[in-house]
Amino acid sequence: MLWWRRFVQGDDSKTVPKSLISVSEACLKILDQRALPGAVQYIDCVNVDEVIEAIGCLAVRGAPAIGLSAAFGLILDLDGQPENADKILLELQARGDRLIASRPTAVNLAWAVEQMLHYARSSACQLGGPGWRQRLYAQAQSLFEADREACRKIGEAGVALLEGRKNILTHCNAGALAVSEYGTALAPIYVAKARGQSINVWVDETRPLLQGARLTAFELMAHDVSCQLITDNMAAHVMASGQVDLVLVGADRVAANGDAANKIGTLGLAVLAHHYGIPFVVACPWSTIDLETRSGSDIVIEERDSNEVCSFQGVRSAPDGMNAFNPAFDVTPADLITALVTERGVLRAPFSVELKAALAAG
Amino acid sequence: MLWWRRFVQGDDSKTVPKSLISVSEACLKILDQRALPGAVQYIDCVNVDEVIEAIGCLAVRGAPAIGLSAAFGLILDLDGQPENADKILLELQARGDRLIASRPTAVNLAWAVEQMLHYARSSACQLGGPGWRQRLYAQAQSLFEADREACRKIGEAGVALLEGRKNILTHCNAGALAVSEYGTALAPIYVAKARGQSINVWVDETRPLLQGARLTAFELMAHDVSCQLITDNMAAHVMASGQVDLVLVGADRVAANGDAANKIGTLGLAVLAHHYGIPFVVACPWSTIDLETRSGSDIVIEERDSNEVCSFQGVRSAPDGMNAFNPAFDVTPADLITALVTERGVLRAPFSVELKAALAAG
Repeated sequence: MLWWRRFVQGDDSKTVPKSLISVSEACLKILDQRALPGAVQYIDCVNVDEVIEAIGCLAVRGAPAIGLSAAFGLILDLDGQPENADKILLELQARGDRLIASRPTAVNLAWAVEQMLHYARSSACQLGGPGWRQRLYAQAQSLFEADREACRKIGEAGVALLEGRKNILTHCNAGALAVSEYGTALAPIYVAKARGQSINVWVDETRPLLQGARLTAFELMAHDVSCQLITDNMAAHVMASGQVDLVLVGADRVAANGDAANKIGTLGLAVLAHHYGIPFVVACPWSTIDLETRSGSDIVIEERDSNEVCSFQGVRSAPDGMNAFNPAFDVTPADLITALVTERGVLRAPFSVELKAALAAG
Repeated sequence: MLWWRRFVQGDDSKTVPKSLISVSEACLKILDQRALPGAVQYIDCVNVDEVIEAIGCLAVRGAPAIGLSAAFGLILDLDGQPENADKILLELQARGDRLIASRPTAVNLAWAVEQMLHYARSSACQLGGPGWRQRLYAQAQSLFEADREACRKIGEAGVALLEGRKNILTHCNAGALAVSEYGTALAPIYVAKARGQSINVWVDETRPLLQGARLTAFELMAHDVSCQLITDNMAAHVMASGQVDLVLVGADRVAANGDAANKIGTLGLAVLAHHYGIPFVVACPWSTIDLETRSGSDIVIEERDSNEVCSFQGVRSAPDGMNAFNPAFDVTPADLITALVTERGVLRAPFSVELKAALAAG
């Protein structure tokens, strides 16, 4: 599998995009997503302040990618610390608080910091004892590997749904840039491509912030995946003309009944796919499923600054004073979703039953 | 009706937008749509060359508006011509050829020029005789008035469909800027507003060229119509949340069976409206109905430069070398259209029967 080798060898990070380019005990190298696709620039973070800065300014985005950046950021430049467990823990806790505050809404950020602090407090870490820095670093690496493994499994579970389907339409960026590697919605596409399947991806540009045009297009091109950019309003036309075989998107939260919140525009694609008889598939890590949320109507939709809608990459497109509505997400009801792919496999409707069974199975 | 008076008085052209701001035998004053919404700038055309330039550079757009500009442009600065009918006709024909060539795909442009030349050749014009310039000018004015009257009638016919419906969603610009005055899809909205009905318009920004954000938003604000801008992919969310009572769009060509070609994105709105049980209405002049075209599948969809999708106003949004698909229009099948509004009234399905009957009657 060429793409896999390219990732693991890490010798062509200039062409194969991932958020965390390389990590060591001394340096976390991050791809600056703000500059994409115009420029491929890296940020070398050698202390926690630089990681906090990178997260805060959105140089790194995507909830899992942010969480993993924080896990590594927590333990950069610890050399000056005394070999005293209590003092080290206080320092780690202070760093963790600052990391979490850098983007308080990203759940994975707090989760990753807590995982690291939990390990630091455990007897296994032997904080302050010989090799404690290496053990903390190994723990951050294990979080990274677990996320990578989840994405890899999503790819392998989802690829079965792509059999005999060449033309895939996706929305926003649920790819390698948002996670450790491989992506969620894009993972099955990379696996299919690696297995020699002919794949062509329709990339919705995804207004207002253009994650499709800027990020998904960038990473698909870097992986040599055949792709074509469209504006969001062209999806109906390409579906109606028989040029879409499957719609594959990520999710930000999936409720217990299978309703899925995702980037604004996802709902419209689901309705169109339903109308044209095209499978509509949601791919996400199991951690995205929130069984505490009963249905989509319980999900609060974040409303963002209207200037995002009134402008395009900093160029004003609407008259001054124009009102605009800017919901960042929408909710796709479960009955429009053909299948849900997680690292635990492919679930089909009725999702409420399937999700409970999968949870019980562990 | 306040909006009507504001149009007719013409004393506040700075706030009430129309393409042809003022016309006389000496000067055609055009609103420069390229500068909208950032700046309200006018171009004074005092000869045919300046009109050709304004059409060619898209300072004036919208098929009827272009046609009317050409009709007036044809007869600007004719003072130097000898009072010889044959020589004048040769000059008018030469001007007409150049005007038509300035945007060869706009059907109304050739149509308007031909109407003027036909009149110039007629005995009624008495070309070269006393007052011939004034008679040609009056003929151009009559074309303008006929277009204005058609739009006014569309507004009055369509307003009945808006009764009890406050929240209207529209796409692209089928407003005053595209025609003589009033617009087609926006005409019923202006009439409803003038009659005191509470109206709120959701304005699709309409990628890639953002005619909604730049032009529709601009003219609705100028007419004090309550409106909110959304990106095209937000329409499903606002419909699903019960915030849209009717979708109202224009058309570029309507086939004999009622299939309607319109700006890309229209089809998606029609599917969404159907899914959510919302009326979907197309408004256009009768001249847009092409009974020679049997159905939508016979309509050739113009494919435009992919750079329009990969950028906005010169700012690149996609990686260099990215493929993009850029169909300028899509076709909405007749069975997704609730009603068709022309200056002859409101037609309902089955359109093929209704259109034939209307043609026979009219």
